[in-house]
Amino acid sequence: MEKVNLAEKFAQFSEYWQPKIVGELNGQHVKLAKFRGPFVWHHHADEDELFLVVKGRFRMELRDREIVLEEGEFLIVPRGVEHCPSADEEVWVLLFEPAATVNTGNAGGDLTVGKPERI
Amino acid sequence: MEKVNLAEKFAQFSEYWQPKIVGELNGQHVKLAKFRGPFVWHHHADEDELFLVVKGRFRMELRDREIVLEEGEFLIVPRGVEHCPSADEEVWVLLFEPAATVNTGNAGGDLTVGKPERI
Repeated sequence: MEKVNLAEKFAQFSEYWQPKIVGELNGQHVKLAKFRGPFVWHHHADEDELFLVVKGRFRMELRDREIVLEEGEFLIVPRGVEHCPSADEEVWVLLFEPAATVNTGNAGGDLTVGKPERI
Repeated sequence: MEKVNLAEKFAQFSEYWQPKIVGELNGQHVKLAKFRGPFVWHHHADEDELFLVVKGRFRMELRDREIVLEEGEFLIVPRGVEHCPSADEEVWVLLFEPAATVNTGNAGGDLTVGKPERI
């Protein structure tokens, strides 16, 4: 039972779109990820997903609109809702989601991280 | 499905030790709380609880030690572990925990918030 410093954890990796596990509680994972560029359109059939911006900003593209998330803002994407995050500049994001969640959801493909690293 | 700005939500209340619900996902709540002074010793029999400092700092007292949490740091207190948060100055905290969690856990008493407000 140790505290986690977000900035120290973000300093430990540089790759984009590869969430790292930094905490687990009640069957949920706390993950950190760096985004840059466009991701892939996908949804999660059984998992709601929370995105909290720790540093920077990004766009969450939805089929009918987009939502720009700034530092200190979060968005919960409910299960089943198609979304595609996209960042013009590097952004640091905290994710909160069930432990079973796969980053690319139904889409799969090269960006899939099957077993996220713990840092 | 709207984004949540943490600072705007924190500006909407001033009372201490009364968590407000600002999000729900996968049976979990995202809550915001302002702490100041000592809380009460308690534990949660069935719920792990995450505390993330958004602004300020506080001490999490445990039976065998204490952990000082600064801005940008989080701590997960596992179910069953007795704890008592305490803050010398006002601190803004984000909580992740199961929707069923009661703030005072097993302790009850005057500080109990039976049905947290949604803001």
